[in-house]
Amino acid sequence: MVQKKVISLTKPIIEEAITNLYCNKFPTSLCIADLGCSSGPNTLFAVLEVVTTLDRVGKKMGRQLPEIQVFLNDLPGNDFNTIFKSLPRFQKDLEKRMGAGAESCFINGAPGSFYGRLFPSKSLHFIHSSYSLQWLSQIPQGLESNKGNIYMANSSPPCVLKAYYEQFQTDFSMFLRCRSEELLEGGSMVLTFLGRRSEDPSTKECCYIWELLAVALNDMVAEGLIEEEKMDSFNIPQYTPSPAEVKCEVEKEGSFTISRLEVSEVNWNAYHGEFCPSDAHKDGGYNVAKLMRAVAEPLLVSHFGDGMIEEVFSRYQKIVADRMSREKTEFINVTVSMTKRG
Amino acid sequence: MVQKKVISLTKPIIEEAITNLYCNKFPTSLCIADLGCSSGPNTLFAVLEVVTTLDRVGKKMGRQLPEIQVFLNDLPGNDFNTIFKSLPRFQKDLEKRMGAGAESCFINGAPGSFYGRLFPSKSLHFIHSSYSLQWLSQIPQGLESNKGNIYMANSSPPCVLKAYYEQFQTDFSMFLRCRSEELLEGGSMVLTFLGRRSEDPSTKECCYIWELLAVALNDMVAEGLIEEEKMDSFNIPQYTPSPAEVKCEVEKEGSFTISRLEVSEVNWNAYHGEFCPSDAHKDGGYNVAKLMRAVAEPLLVSHFGDGMIEEVFSRYQKIVADRMSREKTEFINVTVSMTKRG
Repeated sequence: MVQKKVISLTKPIIEEAITNLYCNKFPTSLCIADLGCSSGPNTLFAVLEVVTTLDRVGKKMGRQLPEIQVFLNDLPGNDFNTIFKSLPRFQKDLEKRMGAGAESCFINGAPGSFYGRLFPSKSLHFIHSSYSLQWLSQIPQGLESNKGNIYMANSSPPCVLKAYYEQFQTDFSMFLRCRSEELLEGGSMVLTFLGRRSEDPSTKECCYIWELLAVALNDMVAEGLIEEEKMDSFNIPQYTPSPAEVKCEVEKEGSFTISRLEVSEVNWNAYHGEFCPSDAHKDGGYNVAKLMRAVAEPLLVSHFGDGMIEEVFSRYQKIVADRMSREKTEFINVTVSMTKRG
Repeated sequence: MVQKKVISLTKPIIEEAITNLYCNKFPTSLCIADLGCSSGPNTLFAVLEVVTTLDRVGKKMGRQLPEIQVFLNDLPGNDFNTIFKSLPRFQKDLEKRMGAGAESCFINGAPGSFYGRLFPSKSLHFIHSSYSLQWLSQIPQGLESNKGNIYMANSSPPCVLKAYYEQFQTDFSMFLRCRSEELLEGGSMVLTFLGRRSEDPSTKECCYIWELLAVALNDMVAEGLIEEEKMDSFNIPQYTPSPAEVKCEVEKEGSFTISRLEVSEVNWNAYHGEFCPSDAHKDGGYNVAKLMRAVAEPLLVSHFGDGMIEEVFSRYQKIVADRMSREKTEFINVTVSMTKRG
């Protein structure tokens, strides 16, 4: 749901990037990729947005829609079967919105890590990625002193913040190098990170939601339900960058010109939103805990085993509900739009 | 296993097609597709063969291996997850056989029916398909008089044979039209059908294996275990063409030049073969029944329900074992290699 919200926020940025694509050159066949597509009810929503934007902008400019080859990327363990089974329905939705041109949209799965090469050189026109690039390729090394925390936090020592930042630099620069090989000249990317406004990497903006999960885990350590050692060695492989940090890596890599770099907010409880009201719950804590559980459960289970999951999220839900009732709680998105230099 | 056998039989044909590809033009990036890839231990075997052939032929001609984009196609309900999960191991196998070039092989899933468009115009260099094109897009209409049979058989009336043939013509000509749009000029296809040598569509060569399954089903009808009406309305959506029939459709469509059209045989019991001896069984009937069960079970279950499956295949195994002990039993493969005209 947050994903849908983000895509509607980034819609004008996507539209601008696509308009430029039409202005630069007009290929008869366009290749686009959605990186970190995941598998769920919203997986194809980004593709629907991008493809219908291509159609709308093209028609406005008096152009016929080119054939579109779409690559949905995620790790090989992602549930591609569910996405593929929903394609006949997606094709119908596309036809409703576009008419006959929908037949010329060909969807493929591209399994693999986006921190490595995924596509042949100069084969893509447009890359989209939403809410995936904050995930690091691995847990940073040297987090031994991050005891009691599970992510960067106010109480994290500087070496922890440094380790996280260096892993982000390594990963994002690798990402940019790979994509710069794969994009055609004039091709563009619109990337949205879960991030922060502040230059302080341990700011509440991005860390609070994890700090509250750490509160639940630490309570369980205190009650002897979780081993302290286990808790101390658990860290989330994420980095929520600032716009300046994103810009810095793009400039260092050197292949791209940034056309937009923007920050937006989504309320933690966007889940209780306009898109799927039937699914939402009056208790914001429930909605946020559910959202975060979808994200964190695989990490928690692989570290702690699955015996503690219900208890953790039951506690987390109460903690989150309490904080939400007392303060403004938002996710910060950093969106960057850039074009491959000639 | 039969699949592996077939690919080793068609290896020289694939090698010839790929050599021609290098001679015609030498792209820096090659797109290849395996249509009807299925999901099992042999799915990536065809890709391994094609890619290592590209590597071997290229090296012989003093060329560097181009980047290769591979599309694995099957229906959206195919188990792509299992294929994708096996990709890291496949990549290692490829490295063992090719060295560093293996990194430049990018594997994608392309879900959809090959009786419709799957790829953008002029986007593919090479298409491979093995043991898939004998499957029709649907059960032919007008098979009411094929009582007691489940496929074309010696006792099928002429109108049944005609209905099957017409469905094959419709489907295969649609296949050729779609692929002729998708292939680049000079691009080629190597297609292997389960087929027959004879011009008689009801010949034992291709129909006997199904006739024996019909024997098992009819026995169960006689014993009241299956309703006669159910049996009479069950037909296999397959057509096993002769080389002449394949040639005729290719010539009618007009976009392709046939460079090879060959027939080969694989013993029914090829399963008890060189490739996976640990998996094989001394009883040929067991091996063949297992092979045919993998193919026919979904069709039987969706028509008859799953209550009768064990019994059918237990009977089928005995019938097959008996026939195999008394006569030569072979599958016939028709392989056609063709090039898109300029």
